[in-house]
Amino acid sequence: MNHGGNIYQFARRLGCLPEQVLDFSANINPVQAVDLSCLQNVQLTPYADPDYGLLKQAIRQRYPIPSGVDIELYNGASAAIFALLRSLQPKDLALYAPLYGEYAHIAGELGCTVHNVNRFDRLVSDIPEHSTVIFVNPSTPDGQLYEMQELLAKWQAADCTIIIDESFLDFCQADSVTEHIAHYDKLYVIKSLSKFYGCAGIRIGFILAATAAIKELHRFEPAWKLSSLDMTYMQQALANTAFIEQTRQQTAHLRGLLYQALHDSGLFDKIYPGQANFLLARLASGDGYQLQGQLEASRILIRVCDNFEGLDKSHVRFAVKDERAIAQLAHSFKNVKK
Amino acid sequence: MNHGGNIYQFARRLGCLPEQVLDFSANINPVQAVDLSCLQNVQLTPYADPDYGLLKQAIRQRYPIPSGVDIELYNGASAAIFALLRSLQPKDLALYAPLYGEYAHIAGELGCTVHNVNRFDRLVSDIPEHSTVIFVNPSTPDGQLYEMQELLAKWQAADCTIIIDESFLDFCQADSVTEHIAHYDKLYVIKSLSKFYGCAGIRIGFILAATAAIKELHRFEPAWKLSSLDMTYMQQALANTAFIEQTRQQTAHLRGLLYQALHDSGLFDKIYPGQANFLLARLASGDGYQLQGQLEASRILIRVCDNFEGLDKSHVRFAVKDERAIAQLAHSFKNVKK
Repeated sequence: MNHGGNIYQFARRLGCLPEQVLDFSANINPVQAVDLSCLQNVQLTPYADPDYGLLKQAIRQRYPIPSGVDIELYNGASAAIFALLRSLQPKDLALYAPLYGEYAHIAGELGCTVHNVNRFDRLVSDIPEHSTVIFVNPSTPDGQLYEMQELLAKWQAADCTIIIDESFLDFCQADSVTEHIAHYDKLYVIKSLSKFYGCAGIRIGFILAATAAIKELHRFEPAWKLSSLDMTYMQQALANTAFIEQTRQQTAHLRGLLYQALHDSGLFDKIYPGQANFLLARLASGDGYQLQGQLEASRILIRVCDNFEGLDKSHVRFAVKDERAIAQLAHSFKNVKK
Repeated sequence: MNHGGNIYQFARRLGCLPEQVLDFSANINPVQAVDLSCLQNVQLTPYADPDYGLLKQAIRQRYPIPSGVDIELYNGASAAIFALLRSLQPKDLALYAPLYGEYAHIAGELGCTVHNVNRFDRLVSDIPEHSTVIFVNPSTPDGQLYEMQELLAKWQAADCTIIIDESFLDFCQADSVTEHIAHYDKLYVIKSLSKFYGCAGIRIGFILAATAAIKELHRFEPAWKLSSLDMTYMQQALANTAFIEQTRQQTAHLRGLLYQALHDSGLFDKIYPGQANFLLARLASGDGYQLQGQLEASRILIRVCDNFEGLDKSHVRFAVKDERAIAQLAHSFKNVKK
């Protein structure tokens, strides 16, 4: 269930403030598109527009959304995942693993039969006909970016309901599968805004799907759920178009530095070629918890990936952070006993 | 489904800004406990504490919550209502009407058999054994405050699941039924914070119930859903204890002025003796839509109550607003053709 380590528990254990933790565990862009000054004129008294018109407009201006495709907004991608699976109530669920825990968690609560497909072993695997497929692209915790056309065709041939989680796609120069919804109305795209826009504290995510599918999802949604503060913030952030290319370039540059730091440490025998804002590495010896223990003195929190299906505690994920944080990580690696 | 008129549609039709509407339709305190400056140090980057520890602590300091009772937080009371009924999946639902539309709406989506009990006709009515009862205290749209002990005993004797919505209780000097949860574990208390704290744009509401009941509700909740901005705002608002008594006194005073304005207009043959931050009145002739039409020139939006079970379009609700707004309403009444 944890996206990253819990900085609050970690800080309590270390006797420091959460903001003093150097958090490599959560995949959040350390840079924001706008600052809090954009909130100064928000009117808190009235109910927000229940149609969320301005926010939807900002999303449509940021992301190409073809006609026949609609948006349902949620309090973050995590809420979207829960709502979607609860609405679809799938019997058979094919999870392309490794995959983060929310999907398996809600599948367990709903009593779905889970079919884990190991992405690393055999991508184009046989999955049950009419099942619901979940695929994250680029994937986590490894950051691999997949070419989706062949996969979509295969799933479609098996009459699957298809859920593609594109929460990290903004970091890549790659197309969304949203266009494909026009050709296949059992396709859903889940999108987080927190990761790319560097604001996990803002709870806005959304699902793109065919108009009728969105109408069905909307049946169980309350009249109001999104914060007026969050909406104002996100509208401004989405309008900052210069931020998009800046973030991609900056992330690629910093990911290179992070790769170098991991490589130079000599601690890892494999670093996965990730395309998003994090890198997965496998320890040559020992395990991630031992490494975490040794990094604690530097208040560095990392993400041990043993609760990802198909991975074990030798796998550790590092978020791409700023130059200074990466330098500090590299420095702390020097004191780690191999 | 509408809590109030939609100020956004209304403003568009009138060609003015939403903030220029004099909104008597939504039951929101016009005064806030804190202003937006309390947000200046919010950290947006990290995920919030998934336990929402600080917010729950602020709620526990504000409201007496006995041991054995826990809190589940939602993005507003409207989200709480949906989540609770969706989890309980009641077969028979006894709705004490008049009652706002969310309950009937979600009951319809869930296929519940709805038993409407008219509060005005016969309060202690026969309801099906083992049914789920919904009661709002003080009630809306009339604002009547009920003594709950006898009702609770009766429902308990019928082995009912009991949902008490106390979203407007803070405006009254009256006890919550929360204490009763210790004696009856099928009792749920729903609470909005938007109304009393004057911030419908902040989406935080909660349910109080027995620990095991909250655990069950929590199963289908995502790891993160509340905005860090909203939480910071509400923590500060809840900590302003002076605001509580000030608001009660101020609301009682302004409700008196509103009553006078409604009375003096000569338009109404009945004004209900409400105890919350709104008053329900019945037009002596004509209907609420005609009255709304005549108040439009003054950009005044009111709430016609014909979509409340048991009421019709002669019933109009007015929120308690500030002195100036009430004076303006009184002035506009003078131009209304009887």
